[in-house]
Amino acid sequence: MDGNTITKPHDRMATALAPRMDAVNTLIRRRMASEHAPRIPEVTAHLVEAGGKRLRPMLTLAAASIFGYEGEDDVRLAATVEFIHTATLLHDDVVDESAQRRGRPTANLLWDNKSSVLVGDYLFARSFQLMVETGSLRVLDILCNASATIAEGEVLQMTAATDLGTDEAVYLQVVRGKTAALFAAATEVGGVISGADEKQVEALRNYGDALGIAFQIVDDLLDYQGDSAATGKNVGDDFRERKLTLPVIKAVAQATPEERAFWERTIEKGRQEEGDLDHALQLMEKYGTLDATRADALEWASRAKKALELVPAHEVRDMLHDLADYVVARLN
Amino acid sequence: MDGNTITKPHDRMATALAPRMDAVNTLIRRRMASEHAPRIPEVTAHLVEAGGKRLRPMLTLAAASIFGYEGEDDVRLAATVEFIHTATLLHDDVVDESAQRRGRPTANLLWDNKSSVLVGDYLFARSFQLMVETGSLRVLDILCNASATIAEGEVLQMTAATDLGTDEAVYLQVVRGKTAALFAAATEVGGVISGADEKQVEALRNYGDALGIAFQIVDDLLDYQGDSAATGKNVGDDFRERKLTLPVIKAVAQATPEERAFWERTIEKGRQEEGDLDHALQLMEKYGTLDATRADALEWASRAKKALELVPAHEVRDMLHDLADYVVARLN
Repeated sequence: MDGNTITKPHDRMATALAPRMDAVNTLIRRRMASEHAPRIPEVTAHLVEAGGKRLRPMLTLAAASIFGYEGEDDVRLAATVEFIHTATLLHDDVVDESAQRRGRPTANLLWDNKSSVLVGDYLFARSFQLMVETGSLRVLDILCNASATIAEGEVLQMTAATDLGTDEAVYLQVVRGKTAALFAAATEVGGVISGADEKQVEALRNYGDALGIAFQIVDDLLDYQGDSAATGKNVGDDFRERKLTLPVIKAVAQATPEERAFWERTIEKGRQEEGDLDHALQLMEKYGTLDATRADALEWASRAKKALELVPAHEVRDMLHDLADYVVARLN
Repeated sequence: MDGNTITKPHDRMATALAPRMDAVNTLIRRRMASEHAPRIPEVTAHLVEAGGKRLRPMLTLAAASIFGYEGEDDVRLAATVEFIHTATLLHDDVVDESAQRRGRPTANLLWDNKSSVLVGDYLFARSFQLMVETGSLRVLDILCNASATIAEGEVLQMTAATDLGTDEAVYLQVVRGKTAALFAAATEVGGVISGADEKQVEALRNYGDALGIAFQIVDDLLDYQGDSAATGKNVGDDFRERKLTLPVIKAVAQATPEERAFWERTIEKGRQEEGDLDHALQLMEKYGTLDATRADALEWASRAKKALELVPAHEVRDMLHDLADYVVARLN
C-alpha cells in the first residue's frame, strides 16, 4: 500500500456522499443562525467552519446510504450529531481551559467562557429541534441517551482523571462518553431511518461504538508516542495535565510501591519535576503498556470491522471497513 | 385582606397538588442520580433540594389538573421543566460568576465551574430523555423550542445587557428567554397532554408567558426598590453589575445628553463612582420609570388573568388567577 496513491477512506466517503454532505453543510449554516442574538453565529461559524473532518455526520449519511435511504432525515440527523459534537467542544474547551483547538484559538479565548457555555446550550437546543423534526421517537430515544452518556462521561472523566483508582473499566466508560456514544448513535440512527432490520441496526451501533473506542485509544496513545508535527500536540500533554489514560492506567496496575509513589506524586498530587515525563515513559516501556494499548486499539478496530459483516455489501460499507483500519493506521 | 390568614396562592396550589408534586419530587431524585459519576447527584442535590418553590413544575401539574388529566405524563413533564430550569441555573451561575443563590453558596463556588457546566449538560440531557418518554411529538416540539428560546435569550442578554441601544423590545425578548419561555411551555404542555382544545392550549400558553414576564419585571424592579431583608439581594445589584433592566431602559430613552453620558459611563463603560447609584435612582425618579415599570408588571399580570378566562372554571384555575396577583403583590 502506497499512502500517496491510496486516498484516505474518509476522503473517499466525502466524495461518495458529496451531494448529501453539501445539504448537511447548508442545513448547519441555516440552523446555527439566530435572528436575535448575533453573537451566536459568530461563535458557531468559528467552530463549524474550522475545517473539522465532519466524521460524525458522515457516519450517519454512510449508514443510511448503505440501505438506499431516499428521504431527508439523514441530512437532519447528520446536522444533529454535528451540533451535539460542536456543543460539547465548546463546553470542553471551557472545562479544560483550552486555548487552542485544531491549531486555532478556541472560542472561550476569542470571546469568553460565557459565550462558549451559552452558545453551546443553544446548539444543544438546536440539535434537539432538528431531531424532533424527524418525527421518529426511536431516533429521539437513541440520541437523547447518547447525550446523557456524553455528559455523564465528561463528569466521570473530570473526577476520575487524576484518581489512581481509575481502572480500565472506568477508562472505557469515559471513552464511551467522550467519543464512542456519539459515533454509535450516529451510525445507529442512519440504520433506523432506513428501515434496516434489528440485527443490522445493532451491527451499525456496534461498529460506531468500536470505531469510537479505537479512535480515542489511538488519540491517547499518540499523546505519548506521536509525531507532534503531525498531531499538533506536544508529547506528554496528558501527563502534564495529569490525565490518566490507558498507557498510564496499565502501568499503574503493575507498579511497585516505589513506582506507585511516583504516579501518586505526578498524577494525583500534580507535583511534577523535570525528568518526570521521561521517567513515566520508561515505566510504560518497562511494562510494555504502549504496545499493549496499541494492541487494544487494533482489537477495537477489528471488532468494528467484524460488526460490518452483518451489514449488506456496498461500496460505502467497504469505506467504513477501511476507516476502521485507517483510524489505527495513524499509529504507524 | 389579611396576609396572616390568607394563604399564598402557590402554597394553596402545593396543597391541592400535593400527591402529584410528591411524585414529581420522587422522579426528580431518581433521575438526577448517576450510576457512574457520583459528582452528579452531589451537585444536583445541592440545587434541587435547596428549597426552591418548584413553581414551574407546579404550573404543569396545575394546567393538567384543570382538565382532569389522569395519566403519568404530567409528572414526567413537571420533572422535565424543573430539570431544564436547574440546568439553566447551573450555567447562569457560571456565566454570572455568582457566589450565592437563595442565600446558599452556588455549585460553581462549592465545586467548580467545570462541574456546573457538565452537570448542567447532564440535566439537559436527562430532561430530553424524560420528555421523549411521553411519546408526544407535539410536547417535544414545544419544549425544544422553549430550550432554544432560553439559550438565545441568555446570549442576547449577555450582549445587550451593557448596550445602551437596548430598547424595550429587546428587553422583552431577553425576559421571554430567561423566564417566560419556560413558564409558557410548562403550562402549555399541561394542556396538550390533557387534550384541551386549541384555544385552551393557547390560553394556557399566553397565561404562562404573561405570568413569566410579570414575574421577571417585578424581579428587576425589586432590585431598585426592594426590601433587601425580604429579597435577599442588595438594592442596586443590577446597576453595579451593569445590567440594563426596564427602569433604566425607560430612563435612558428620555435622557438629556448629560444624563446619557452618565449612563454611558456607569453602564456601558462600567466606570462607577460613589454616589452613582443614588444619582441613577434620582434619574429614575425624575422620569417616573419605577412607577411606569410597576404599571407594566401590573399590565402583564392582568393579561395573564385575562388569558385564564378561556380555561374552564376550576379551583386550581382560581389559584393560577391569584398567583398572577401575588407575583406583582411582592411590590407592595
